[in-house]
Amino acid sequence: MGTSVTGLAILGSTGSIGRQTLDVVRGLRGRFRVVGLAAGRNATLLEEQAREFSPKLICCEGNEHASKSVISLGGAASSSLEEMATHPDVDVVVVATAGKAGLLPTLAALAAGKVVALANKEALVMAGKIVAQAAARGKGEIRPIDSEHSAVWQCLRGERKTDVSRIILTASGGAFRDKSLDELRLVTPEQALRHPTWQMGRKITIDSATLLNKGLEAIEARWLFDVPLDRIEIVMHRESIVHSFVEFGDGSLKAQLGIPDMRLPIQYALCYPERLPLPSATRLDVTQAGDLHFEKLDLRRYPCLALALEAGHRGGTYPTVLAAADEVAVERFLAGHIRFTDIPQVIKDTLDEHDSIPDPDLDGILAADAWARARAEDLVRAKA
Amino acid sequence: MGTSVTGLAILGSTGSIGRQTLDVVRGLRGRFRVVGLAAGRNATLLEEQAREFSPKLICCEGNEHASKSVISLGGAASSSLEEMATHPDVDVVVVATAGKAGLLPTLAALAAGKVVALANKEALVMAGKIVAQAAARGKGEIRPIDSEHSAVWQCLRGERKTDVSRIILTASGGAFRDKSLDELRLVTPEQALRHPTWQMGRKITIDSATLLNKGLEAIEARWLFDVPLDRIEIVMHRESIVHSFVEFGDGSLKAQLGIPDMRLPIQYALCYPERLPLPSATRLDVTQAGDLHFEKLDLRRYPCLALALEAGHRGGTYPTVLAAADEVAVERFLAGHIRFTDIPQVIKDTLDEHDSIPDPDLDGILAADAWARARAEDLVRAKA
Repeated sequence: MGTSVTGLAILGSTGSIGRQTLDVVRGLRGRFRVVGLAAGRNATLLEEQAREFSPKLICCEGNEHASKSVISLGGAASSSLEEMATHPDVDVVVVATAGKAGLLPTLAALAAGKVVALANKEALVMAGKIVAQAAARGKGEIRPIDSEHSAVWQCLRGERKTDVSRIILTASGGAFRDKSLDELRLVTPEQALRHPTWQMGRKITIDSATLLNKGLEAIEARWLFDVPLDRIEIVMHRESIVHSFVEFGDGSLKAQLGIPDMRLPIQYALCYPERLPLPSATRLDVTQAGDLHFEKLDLRRYPCLALALEAGHRGGTYPTVLAAADEVAVERFLAGHIRFTDIPQVIKDTLDEHDSIPDPDLDGILAADAWARARAEDLVRAKA
Repeated sequence: MGTSVTGLAILGSTGSIGRQTLDVVRGLRGRFRVVGLAAGRNATLLEEQAREFSPKLICCEGNEHASKSVISLGGAASSSLEEMATHPDVDVVVVATAGKAGLLPTLAALAAGKVVALANKEALVMAGKIVAQAAARGKGEIRPIDSEHSAVWQCLRGERKTDVSRIILTASGGAFRDKSLDELRLVTPEQALRHPTWQMGRKITIDSATLLNKGLEAIEARWLFDVPLDRIEIVMHRESIVHSFVEFGDGSLKAQLGIPDMRLPIQYALCYPERLPLPSATRLDVTQAGDLHFEKLDLRRYPCLALALEAGHRGGTYPTVLAAADEVAVERFLAGHIRFTDIPQVIKDTLDEHDSIPDPDLDGILAADAWARARAEDLVRAKA
C-alpha cells in the first residue's frame, strides 16, 4: 500500500469500534478514503459521519427513511453490506457490526480479495472453518482488531507458525469478578454494563461480565492463528495491561502491552505492516502501571466460558448455536426479561437440545443459527 | 542452515555461558559440530570438554602445558582465538570470553563472514561502531546472547527498525538492591557474588551488583539495534521474568518473558530463525509467577550506572576507558584490595583524567584501553 490512499468500508460505523476507526482515520489524514459507511439504527450519527467523510456508499439497514435522508445529503448511493464490502474502490473492510450480521459481508469481502479488519466475533465463531478457507483461498486476508487477537498477531510477527506452542489470552474478569455466585443472581443490566477496564458496546460488555467473550475469543483465535483449541489458554489479568501472550516451542513467551485503547489495534490492522504514530494515545509507563498479576480462572464462577469452550471443542454447529443463544439471552437480560444467571442456563439448554451437523456448510450454519434463536426465545419466554 | 550440521567455535567454553552452550549442543544432538574450544585457565574442564566433543581446534591461552596435554589427547590442533574464529569449518562463533579478549576474535569472525553469537559485552562497549560496521559490511552477523538483548531481538523479529521508539531494558537491581548506601561500604566479595535471580560468572555478577552491567548493556543495545542511547531506558524489575521491552511508534509495547535460564537465549541465537524445543527448561506459568512490577531506578544508588550512561553519551574512547577501568576495579575488589564503594570511584577518576579521541580507530581504542588499565591500577594502589 505504501503511501497510496487506502479505501475503507466501515460496517458498523456508529458503534464503539466504528467511531474509534473514524478517529484513527481523522488522525492519519490523507492516508484513508472512507468509501462506505454502514450503520444499523443510529441514523443521526450516521448522517453526521456522512457529512464529515463524504462516502460514496451508505447503508442504514435498520431505518430506510434515515438512509434516504443521508443519501440525499451527501450525494451517496444506497448500498447493501455485501455491495459495500466488495466495491472496487474498497481495499480494507472494517467489520465492526455486532452479531451474525458480520458473517456474510466478511465472506463476500474475502472472496473479492479484500483485507478484512475484523472486530466482529460471530463470523469466526459461527463459521470459522469457512471463513478461514475463504481467506486462505484468494487474495483476501483477515486482520484482527480485538485487543487480545491483535496482541497475539503482533507477538507472532516474524515468527514461524510451527514454533507456536501456546496462546495465552488475558481476561480482565469482567464487571463481576469479585462478586459471589449468590450476588450474581440479583445484578442489574446497569451494573453489568460497568466494565472495570474497557469502554465497549453493550453486548460485548455483558459477554465480558459472563466471560462468554473469552470463550468466543478462544474459538476465534483457533481459526485466526490455526492453533488447536487445547493449546489456547485463558488467564485472569485484572489490570488489562498485558493484552495476551504467545509461548513458543523453546519456552520463550512474548507479550504485547499497552494502556487499554482500541484505537491502537484498529490502527495496527489498518496500517499493517506499518506502525504509524498514534500521538493522542496515552503511553504506558511500566513503572507507573502498578503490579501486574495473572490468576487461574475458576470455570465454576464462569459457566458461560465453560459452555463456550465445550462448544468449541465439540465443533460442528455447536459454536453457531452458542453464539446465537447468547445473542438472544443477552438481549433479553438487557431488556430486563431474565436474570444475569439465566444467561448460561438459556445457552446450556439450547446447546443440550441441539443436534449438531459435522463440518457444516454455510446453509447448515444459517439453519442452526435460526433454530437456536427460535429455541432460545422459547426458553427465555418460559423463564420470564 | 536448515537441517545441515552447524560448525561451532566456543570462545570461553569453560565459563558459565560456554558450559551452558555445550548443554544446548548436547540437547540438540546432530545439529552442531563443535569445531573449536577455547578457554583461559580451567585446563581440567577444557580437557573433559575436549574428550566429550572431540574438537579439531583447541586453545588454552592461560596455560600452555595444559593446552599441549589436551591436544595430545584428542588429536586436536593448537589454535589462537582468531584462527579458531575464522576457520572454514566454523559457521557460528560463540564469543563468551570475558573482558577485552572478546574484541579481536569478534572482528575477525565478522570479517570472515561468520555468525557471532555474542555474550561478551566489551566488544561492543569498547568498539561498538567498528564492530557494527564490520557486521554491516560483509556476510557476518551478530546475534546477542545476553538475556536482555535476546529479549529485544525477539521483540523486534518481523518489525521494521524505523518503527522502534524506545528500548526498555529490565534490571533485577543486583545483590544489594535493598541495602542502604552506608551498608554498601562494608559488603564483601562473597556477598556481592550472591545474585538474587541469575547464576552467572564472577565479573558479571559484580557488575550486576553495581549495575554497571546495565550501562554496558545500554551501550551494547545502541550498537546492536542502531537505536540512539537516549531512547534506551532501564527499569528495575526484581523478578527477572520480563527480560526487556520494545516500544513502537504507535505506543504498542512488546516484551519477552521466561524463567531465568541462559540456555534459552543461547539456543535462540544458535538456531535462529528456528525455535527448537528446549525440554529441560522450566516453563513459565504466568499464574505462578507472582506479581510483576517495575520501578524507576535511582541513579544516586547506582553511581556506576550513571558513569556508564554518561560515558556512552560522550562516546569517543570514554566507553573503552569505562570498561577497562571497571575490569581492573572489579578484579581488585574480588581480590579484597578495595571496597565495593571504591569501584565507582576508580572508574570515575580514570574517566575524569582521560583525553578522549573522537571516532577512534582500533589502534586508538586499544591505546585508550591500555592507558585506562594502567591508570586504574595506579588509582587502586593509592586506595589499597
